Amino acid sequence: MSPSHKLCMIPGPIEFHEDVLQAMATPATSHVAPNFIPALGESIELLRKVLFTSGQPFIIAGSGTLGWDMTACNLVEAGDDVLVCNSGYFGDRFGECLETYGAKVTHLRVPIGESPQLAAVAAALKSKKFKAITITHVDTSTGVLSDIKGIAEVVKAESPETLVVVDGVCSVGSEEIRMDAWGIDVVVTASQKALGAPPGLCVMGVSERAIGVFKNRKTPVPNYYANWNRWLPIMNAYEARKPSYFATPAVQNIFALNVSLKQIVAQGIEKRFALHKEASAKAKKVIHDLGLKLVPTSLDHAANGMSAVYYPEGIAATDLLPKLAAHGIVAAGGLHVEIAPKYFRIGHMGISVTEPERGHLDATLNALKASLAECGYKGAL
Amino acid sequence: MSPSHKLCMIPGPIEFHEDVLQAMATPATSHVAPNFIPALGESIELLRKVLFTSGQPFIIAGSGTLGWDMTACNLVEAGDDVLVCNSGYFGDRFGECLETYGAKVTHLRVPIGESPQLAAVAAALKSKKFKAITITHVDTSTGVLSDIKGIAEVVKAESPETLVVVDGVCSVGSEEIRMDAWGIDVVVTASQKALGAPPGLCVMGVSERAIGVFKNRKTPVPNYYANWNRWLPIMNAYEARKPSYFATPAVQNIFALNVSLKQIVAQGIEKRFALHKEASAKAKKVIHDLGLKLVPTSLDHAANGMSAVYYPEGIAATDLLPKLAAHGIVAAGGLHVEIAPKYFRIGHMGISVTEPERGHLDATLNALKASLAECGYKGAL
Repeated sequence: MSPSHKLCMIPGPIEFHEDVLQAMATPATSHVAPNFIPALGESIELLRKVLFTSGQPFIIAGSGTLGWDMTACNLVEAGDDVLVCNSGYFGDRFGECLETYGAKVTHLRVPIGESPQLAAVAAALKSKKFKAITITHVDTSTGVLSDIKGIAEVVKAESPETLVVVDGVCSVGSEEIRMDAWGIDVVVTASQKALGAPPGLCVMGVSERAIGVFKNRKTPVPNYYANWNRWLPIMNAYEARKPSYFATPAVQNIFALNVSLKQIVAQGIEKRFALHKEASAKAKKVIHDLGLKLVPTSLDHAANGMSAVYYPEGIAATDLLPKLAAHGIVAAGGLHVEIAPKYFRIGHMGISVTEPERGHLDATLNALKASLAECGYKGAL
Repeated sequence: MSPSHKLCMIPGPIEFHEDVLQAMATPATSHVAPNFIPALGESIELLRKVLFTSGQPFIIAGSGTLGWDMTACNLVEAGDDVLVCNSGYFGDRFGECLETYGAKVTHLRVPIGESPQLAAVAAALKSKKFKAITITHVDTSTGVLSDIKGIAEVVKAESPETLVVVDGVCSVGSEEIRMDAWGIDVVVTASQKALGAPPGLCVMGVSERAIGVFKNRKTPVPNYYANWNRWLPIMNAYEARKPSYFATPAVQNIFALNVSLKQIVAQGIEKRFALHKEASAKAKKVIHDLGLKLVPTSLDHAANGMSAVYYPEGIAATDLLPKLAAHGIVAAGGLHVEIAPKYFRIGHMGISVTEPERGHLDATLNALKASLAECGYKGAL
């Protein structure tokens, strides 16, 4: 790695393992080549392990945003009610996507920094029949972690037919998710966060129940590229190690994802959850000891894969972020429109956490201390 | 490159330049990083040069198929008539995509191996008012090259308001296209063919006139991820070298495309056209001298970037393709459903053509001769 490379410690894309990057540079390979077919087929199998599901994974050229379309156009029909647990920027956007396909969206909004309350979800579910409920597992804009296990239990008790949809773009691979055991029907994610591969792939897990709902829809799917009728035969063919064609897959990106998924499963998914909790606790302790305030109002609902932190008084993005960069650390500014200039975000996911010997998190926290001092901050440390 | 690497001589993905592959392995980089923003911004500018247009390029994580959705959902409204010049598999599929968004599609079908006739296009345009006409520039399934310049002239004469949409997935970078001079409104392509980068990006050029039609549409765009209202501000921001966010771009793929576009423009686009014609003539001469028959019924409408060739009698895909592979050449089987087992396809695009000193085409043609001989073919050579 070039000495000029700055550590990418934002909440995705994250730092990649050398073997993952090497796979990105795989020479030209046909999308039906004997060495590519198993890379996609095996990635589908590995995703089942990562998501703890017997359901159907999808790996499609695109981004996490495309996963919203896939959810909305395949599972929702015009006029269906959908409940959006809205903890920030990404709840707003998912709601817009659902409305594009004719959903009647009810937002269950929580104040910035809060996570959806189970009682509020239960009350909302009593108000009408929802086809689906969506939850942003980690809202990348605020670092808030939603209790998807608890919410899924509430759904099971109050409205068992409602599909439980999790936006796991910023959580799959860093936060605990057990699709089948918890009753999660859809997980939407992308390659470039805690799955540890470069951006360019929409990644999903869909329960058998949700596939059944899809197959029984009354109206045609109002989208071509995102239509599961096109993609199910492709995913099935590659998993059976047979070539098939609908749209050219992103061959190199899938080779890279395959390498990363193998690493994730080899290390052990339970261990991965534990390491992310450990790293987050370490980061949050330093942030607390520095006298800084997290955007999440409690550690109980703060993400383990990232931290969103208010600038101390008198210090702005234009002060802190360039100083962090000068120390070799790329952090992210705020994204939630109501507070964007007031906070910054750091990611602690993937190899920066699972291979602590790389020293990425320590370097980041040390750079944060040094940069704050250079900004004239007289904080606790 | 590994000695075990077989040359990927299919009609996309194609062989990549070493510098393009190197760019695919760029270490983790934020999508709003100071070194990424100009890579996307400059790629947008370079695409204008490659397509000879002052219109709006789009570069989006996805595949060429997504470009059909982008065309259909942004430019066509439910009930609009669209004329599809259908020269094979890809005309069928584009038609299905258009119908998904409510278009009334009229197929102008031509027999396998033929290209759309200008008189037939003119007659079809007289029959009703079409919002758009689509033409598969090179149908990857048959190697047929359509006369997009001639068809655009017919449109201008018969129905000037009709938008001219070119599926250039298998032509941009290998076949002559001059969007503005010829009156082409939309060109859909992808990264992995003659643009010389790995798969994973949907690439488009849209005329100012088509953007105007888009802006004046009466109904909302019925798609979220493919909605140009989302992407226009993003493309504009990056071109102005400013960060912006809708969906995370495929950072590494865009770095790679940027390298390839710079190479294309540096070599000269006119020269590129000429080199592809030369290489194609060379390939077609060998094919002819071998006594083999092309799928296109005339050289006048045979693609310059690929050749689709019928197997000689008694020789099947299961015979020839593995022998070619044993000689280190990956070729493709047939794709057009009516004749799929009867023919094969080779690509001659990108660095395999523009850097003839690599010897890719000679190796391919020599392997073809040797493989046919091994199959017991007593052809002309």
